Amino acid sequence: MAHTYKVKYFNFTARGEPIRMLLSYGEIPFEDERISREDWPKIKPSTPLGQLPVLEIDGKQIPHSVSICRYLATIVKLDGKDAKENLRIDVAVETLLDLQKLAFECVMESDAAKKDEKNKKLKESVPLYLGKLEEHANKNGGYIALDRLSWADIIFICIYEGLMNILGKNTFDSYPSLQKIKKNVLDVKGIRNWIKNRPETPSSMGPLKFEYDLKQEV
Amino acid sequence: MAHTYKVKYFNFTARGEPIRMLLSYGEIPFEDERISREDWPKIKPSTPLGQLPVLEIDGKQIPHSVSICRYLATIVKLDGKDAKENLRIDVAVETLLDLQKLAFECVMESDAAKKDEKNKKLKESVPLYLGKLEEHANKNGGYIALDRLSWADIIFICIYEGLMNILGKNTFDSYPSLQKIKKNVLDVKGIRNWIKNRPETPSSMGPLKFEYDLKQEV
Repeated sequence: MAHTYKVKYFNFTARGEPIRMLLSYGEIPFEDERISREDWPKIKPSTPLGQLPVLEIDGKQIPHSVSICRYLATIVKLDGKDAKENLRIDVAVETLLDLQKLAFECVMESDAAKKDEKNKKLKESVPLYLGKLEEHANKNGGYIALDRLSWADIIFICIYEGLMNILGKNTFDSYPSLQKIKKNVLDVKGIRNWIKNRPETPSSMGPLKFEYDLKQEV
Repeated sequence: MAHTYKVKYFNFTARGEPIRMLLSYGEIPFEDERISREDWPKIKPSTPLGQLPVLEIDGKQIPHSVSICRYLATIVKLDGKDAKENLRIDVAVETLLDLQKLAFECVMESDAAKKDEKNKKLKESVPLYLGKLEEHANKNGGYIALDRLSWADIIFICIYEGLMNILGKNTFDSYPSLQKIKKNVLDVKGIRNWIKNRPETPSSMGPLKFEYDLKQEV
């Protein structure tokens, strides 16, 4: 019997979008429940850890977005074929998440001196991290971890969108292989269809400007 | 031919210790290189992402502690037997890391108002997270993710030590099944020997008091 899937998250891309995208890639039907800010306090105590996203599989709630993605990847066959390939995927994913975290912390910092410090760290990290990822993408022919599509590329495309909104539209201009990943991922039918048809979805709450949407590229 | 392993990290437990412990569990010989604060600026540019820990396998440097641990777990057979078991491990690990992060951010926060806010969040999260982990540990007979030892238990024991130093020595008093995990893990020969014989290793740099050391329990 087919399993039933429900993604519970806010109406943001952020940590929910890779889950929605992996399910869409696998053409696995899912209920896309978007919790409003007003309803969240009522729903929060019913989640396993007072957090979203949650993936419900046959009614059982699973927390933690990265764990969920790694699991879904095994179902839609976007994991590695062995432990060494999975290590390459995991390293790419942790690198991307670190970069996203640094960028997000800069945006959210309200103290001016600390913001300067965080911006400095971000400015050092962006070329280092993107440069390293570009090297891998170049070696892999336009994929971030393996020589073919993996769930790390799905994480990449979601973070790509977020970074374009935080760091600006020219962030990836000097990284041709990372741009090739974007193209490769957006060429995949399930993902393309998802992005074309997804509801209007801000990249996050908070002080982010929201100008760039992957939708404009599919 | 056997592979050669070198763990490069500071002389802290923190993110390096689960790597050292997993190798010790598997009775895999490794070089335990501890970088001093003075040497770090010289060594930093030679690491893949300007960060430690790094695991060198046959001279090739791998960054990111959690990715390294997940990979080593497959080698020493502390991973799950299938995707569902690995999901349970990953969820437990992400829960533990979230808790560690919340606690660590409280310690590191210098702004008084923000520290209050973070302490409030920590006070809410500790019973929620530990309560949830206790439930699982109880169901699993003294293991955190599966009904037997997994690499999530190694992560647990390392974070246990850190939390005892941040949150105080009675943190786990009302969690008998989590204490049972500690006992189960410390009873494992490779781990017990490692802890008995490891060099003096502070839990982290910074303003942590360092009173509790697993060594006193083996």
